[in-house]
Amino acid sequence: MFSLSYIKLSLMRIILLLFVFFSLITSVNAQSGATLSIRSVRSEKEIEWIKEYRSFLSIPNIAADTIGLKQNATFIMEMMKSRNIQQVKLLNGVSKNVVPAIYGEVITPGAVKTIIFYAHYDGQPVDSSQWYKGLSPFVPTLVNGSLEKGANIIPFENSKLNPDWRIYARGASDDKAGVMAILSAYEAINKLGLKLQYNIKFFFEGEEEAGSTHLSEIFQQNESLLESDGWVICDGPVHQSGNKSIIFGVRGDAHVSITVYGPSRPLHSGHYGNWAPNPGLMLAQLLSSMKDDKGRVTIKGFYDDTKPLTSDERKAISTIPPVGDQMKKELKFLNEEMEGVSLEKSILMPSLNINGMQSGNVGKKASNVIPITASAVIDLRLVPGNDYQLQQQKVVKHIKSKGYYVINRDPTDEERSKYAKIATINLSDGYNAQRTSLSDPFAQKIVAAVQSTTKEILVLLPSMGGSLPLFLFDKYLKAKTITVPIANHDNNQHAENENIRIRNLWNGIETMAAIMMMK
Amino acid sequence: MFSLSYIKLSLMRIILLLFVFFSLITSVNAQSGATLSIRSVRSEKEIEWIKEYRSFLSIPNIAADTIGLKQNATFIMEMMKSRNIQQVKLLNGVSKNVVPAIYGEVITPGAVKTIIFYAHYDGQPVDSSQWYKGLSPFVPTLVNGSLEKGANIIPFENSKLNPDWRIYARGASDDKAGVMAILSAYEAINKLGLKLQYNIKFFFEGEEEAGSTHLSEIFQQNESLLESDGWVICDGPVHQSGNKSIIFGVRGDAHVSITVYGPSRPLHSGHYGNWAPNPGLMLAQLLSSMKDDKGRVTIKGFYDDTKPLTSDERKAISTIPPVGDQMKKELKFLNEEMEGVSLEKSILMPSLNINGMQSGNVGKKASNVIPITASAVIDLRLVPGNDYQLQQQKVVKHIKSKGYYVINRDPTDEERSKYAKIATINLSDGYNAQRTSLSDPFAQKIVAAVQSTTKEILVLLPSMGGSLPLFLFDKYLKAKTITVPIANHDNNQHAENENIRIRNLWNGIETMAAIMMMK
Repeated sequence: MFSLSYIKLSLMRIILLLFVFFSLITSVNAQSGATLSIRSVRSEKEIEWIKEYRSFLSIPNIAADTIGLKQNATFIMEMMKSRNIQQVKLLNGVSKNVVPAIYGEVITPGAVKTIIFYAHYDGQPVDSSQWYKGLSPFVPTLVNGSLEKGANIIPFENSKLNPDWRIYARGASDDKAGVMAILSAYEAINKLGLKLQYNIKFFFEGEEEAGSTHLSEIFQQNESLLESDGWVICDGPVHQSGNKSIIFGVRGDAHVSITVYGPSRPLHSGHYGNWAPNPGLMLAQLLSSMKDDKGRVTIKGFYDDTKPLTSDERKAISTIPPVGDQMKKELKFLNEEMEGVSLEKSILMPSLNINGMQSGNVGKKASNVIPITASAVIDLRLVPGNDYQLQQQKVVKHIKSKGYYVINRDPTDEERSKYAKIATINLSDGYNAQRTSLSDPFAQKIVAAVQSTTKEILVLLPSMGGSLPLFLFDKYLKAKTITVPIANHDNNQHAENENIRIRNLWNGIETMAAIMMMK
Repeated sequence: MFSLSYIKLSLMRIILLLFVFFSLITSVNAQSGATLSIRSVRSEKEIEWIKEYRSFLSIPNIAADTIGLKQNATFIMEMMKSRNIQQVKLLNGVSKNVVPAIYGEVITPGAVKTIIFYAHYDGQPVDSSQWYKGLSPFVPTLVNGSLEKGANIIPFENSKLNPDWRIYARGASDDKAGVMAILSAYEAINKLGLKLQYNIKFFFEGEEEAGSTHLSEIFQQNESLLESDGWVICDGPVHQSGNKSIIFGVRGDAHVSITVYGPSRPLHSGHYGNWAPNPGLMLAQLLSSMKDDKGRVTIKGFYDDTKPLTSDERKAISTIPPVGDQMKKELKFLNEEMEGVSLEKSILMPSLNINGMQSGNVGKKASNVIPITASAVIDLRLVPGNDYQLQQQKVVKHIKSKGYYVINRDPTDEERSKYAKIATINLSDGYNAQRTSLSDPFAQKIVAAVQSTTKEILVLLPSMGGSLPLFLFDKYLKAKTITVPIANHDNNQHAENENIRIRNLWNGIETMAAIMMMK
C-alpha cells in the first residue's frame, strides 16, 4: 500500500528527473543540466537548509570551548545520518584532548575511485565587544546586504531569501559554510537519485583554527580509511573578482621574532637621550634594512631558491580578472608595496612582513624614556622551492651581517658588556609550501566539474597567499589536495562581523555537487 | 630666674660658637668651619630629623590624591613655623583646583638682597605592585645599602645612622629631600645663631610632577612677594661621580607623535603580504632615516641654530669627572649612541629619541596581519639657541621630504586614495632651554658657597640633560635660577623603589646652609 506521502515524493522525483533530462539535452558549455537540477532542489529546500544552518551556527565553536565543539560534532553527525551518509563516526586520534574529526562515507557500487571532501567546523576566537552593534557571534543574524555598506538587520522569515542577503555569525563563512555546502550538495544528489562515479568520503576537522595540532595523528591512525584519489578542501574565500576559484596550493609559513636591547633599565630620555643606545631606533634600522624602497626584500638570497612558474601556471595567472584597483579602493590605499607587481604575482613570491613591532609605549601611555628593548615579529611566507628553515636562516644571517650578536634567550650581563648589538631571535615552527600541478588529471577533472557550473571564467590560482598545513596530506596520506573555496572574499574571515553571502552558499552547493558527480 | 634647660641651651650654644670660631681660623680651602658647625648640629639632631622625615614621607603625595597633598602642605607649614620661619602661607593661584605652593620668609635686618629656595613636595605616580617585596611607597623603609645590590631592610632605631644606609619611599629623593634639606639647613643656622647676609624666602611647589600647571599664575599673583636676586632650585640628583653639582640650565622639551597608514582594515599577511603596504615597515624606514649609523641626527638643519658653548662652559665640562665607563657598566651596554661623544657633551646637544613605537602586536598577542597603522612618539630635547616649534617643524619637513602627505588628524577615504604615504603628526606643547651664565655674579657666589663645603671638585653642568619649565621664572619674575641637586644619582627617580642615601641628605643640608650664609 502506497501512502500519500510516498506518491508525492515519487511524483516530485519524476518531475525532477524530467527536468534533469531536458536540461542535459539542452546544455551548452556553461551551466550543466545537473547544476540546474541541483539548483531546483536548493530552491525547494532553501528555507529548510537555512533553518538548519542557523541552528548549526548557534553552537559556539571556538577552540577554548570543548563542550561547544562536541555539540557541533554531534550536530554534524546528525546532519550526515539524516542524509543517508554511512559509517558516520568520530576520528579521535590517540592523544588526550583531541577535538575529533568527523568521518562519513558513501560507497558507490562499482566505483574504484574515491574523493574526500574536507571542511572544518571550528572557528577563530571571538571578542564579542568588537562585533557590530546588535550582532552576537553565536546568534546568527540576517542582514539585507553588507553591514559595512550600510545594510540593515532583518528578521529571518519563511519567505524566499534574497541571495544578496548575508548571515552574520562566527563560522558563517570559515568554515561551517564548507560543511553545509558539502552535505547539502550530497543531499540534493541523493534526492535526485543521480548516479556517482566516485566513492565519496567526508572529513570534517575540529582543530583547523588551532593549527591542526592532531591532524597528523588522525591521518596516521586512519591511513587505509582515508585512502583516496584526492581531497577537495572546501575552505576560504573565492577570488576577489567574485568568480569561482580553484586553488592548487598554499604558501608555506614561518616566523622570526626579534628583540634588540638598549640600557638595562628604562632611562630618562632627557638625562641620557642620544647617549644611551635607543633600541627602538636600532630595530627600525634593522627592519628597514630588510627591504628596499621598491618593497623588494634585500636579504641575501631571499628569492634565490624559488621554483619558477610553469607555463601552465603563467597562463592561468594571465587569465585571472585583475582586481588590484578594486581591492586598493576597498582597502583605501594608493600603491602596492612592490611597485607594479600585481596581487596575483605578489602571492606567488616568498614574502617578509612585519606582523607587529613594539618599543616602549605610544599614545597616552608614552613616557619620556629610552626603552630597554624593542621587539618585532616577522612573518615569512614561502613558495615551492623554499625551505622554511633555510628562509629563517637567511633572516638570521642578515641580522648578523648588520653586526648583531645573535642568541635565542635573554643576554647575560657579560654579553651585554661585550657586544654593542645583541639580538634575541626565536624561530617558530613552520612548514613549506605545497602545490598540485595544474596538469594533474585529478586536478583537471575538478576544473572541468567546477567549470560546468558557471559561464564565467574560473580563477585558477597556482597558490593562495595564505598557508594551510596541506603538506600533512602529502606526508601522511600521499594524497593530493585541491582547494575549492566558496565564501565571499569580503566575509571578514578571522575577524569580527564574519558573514556569508547567501548566494555564495548556493553557488558552493552547486560547485560541490558538480565535483561529487564528476567522471 | 634661669631654668635648667635654659642654662643647658646657653652652654651648648657657647660650645658651638667656640667650635665655629676655631674652625674658622683653621679653615683651609676645603670644608669651611661653618660647614663643620652645621655638621655638628646635624650630628646632634639627626635622629630627630629622620623621625620627622619619616612622618613627612608617610603622607601620600601623588597628583591624584588632593587630600594627601593638602596634608603634606599642612605638615610642611608646621615644619616651617617650628623653625621660626615667618609669613608661612599657601599661595593658591586663581584657578580652581590649584595645589598650592607654600611660602615662608626670614627677613635679615639690613639685608638688601634676597635668595629664594625652591623644592617641590609632590611626587610621581606609584604602582605599588612594582615595588620591591616588603616595600610600600608610603611606608618609609630603612635599608642598609642599595636593594639592587643585595642590601637588606633593617628596622629604624634610635641609634646612630650609617650614612650609607638608604630610606626607600616615594618622594624620598624627588623632592621631599629638597624640602627637608632646606628647612634643616635653616634650623641649624638658626640654632647656631649665625648671621645671614641675604633675606631668605622659601617656595615649595605642589604640582611639579604634574607639569607645574599653575606655576605661572602663582608667579603672576605674587610678583612682588617673589622678587629676588636669584632662585636656588633644590631638585634632582647630583652627578653620577657622586661629586656635588651645580647646574646652570635645563634642556627644552617638545614631542612629535607620528602615525602612518597601511590598509584600512587588518589584512591577512598571507593573502595580502608584500602587496598591501606595511605601515610597520614604513615607520621603520621613516625613523631610521632620521639618524645615521653614528647616531647623529640627519634631519636638515637639526643642529644649525645651537648656540656654541662659551669658553667658561667648555672649561667647566673639561673638569667633570668622566663617568661614561661607570655608567655603561651600570646600565649594561657597550657603546654610546654617538660614537666617541661623552655623556657630558651629548646632553649639551639637541636630541631626538624614540620614546615608543608600535604597530600590531608582538609576543603572544602577535597575529598574522598587516597592521593598519604604525605609531611613534619622538622626544626632542633642546639647548640654548633652539626654538621648540622650529625644531618640531624640522622633523615635519623631514617627513614631508620622504614623500609623506602630512595632516594632524585621521585621513579621509579620499586622502587615502590620493596619497601613497600619509602621516598624521601631532606636535605637543613644549618649551625652550634655559641657562644662566656661569660667569653671572650670583652664580659665582653659589659656586663659592657650595665649594666651601667640600674638598672635591664641583661638577658644574651648563645644562642638565633633563627639562624643567625654568623659563617660567624668567618669563614671569625676570628671575635667575641655579639648580643645586642633592640626591644620589641611583635614586630610582620617577620609578619604583625610589630612595635617598642618608649621606646625600646630610651633604644636602650642608650645601643649602652654605648657600644661605653666602656673602
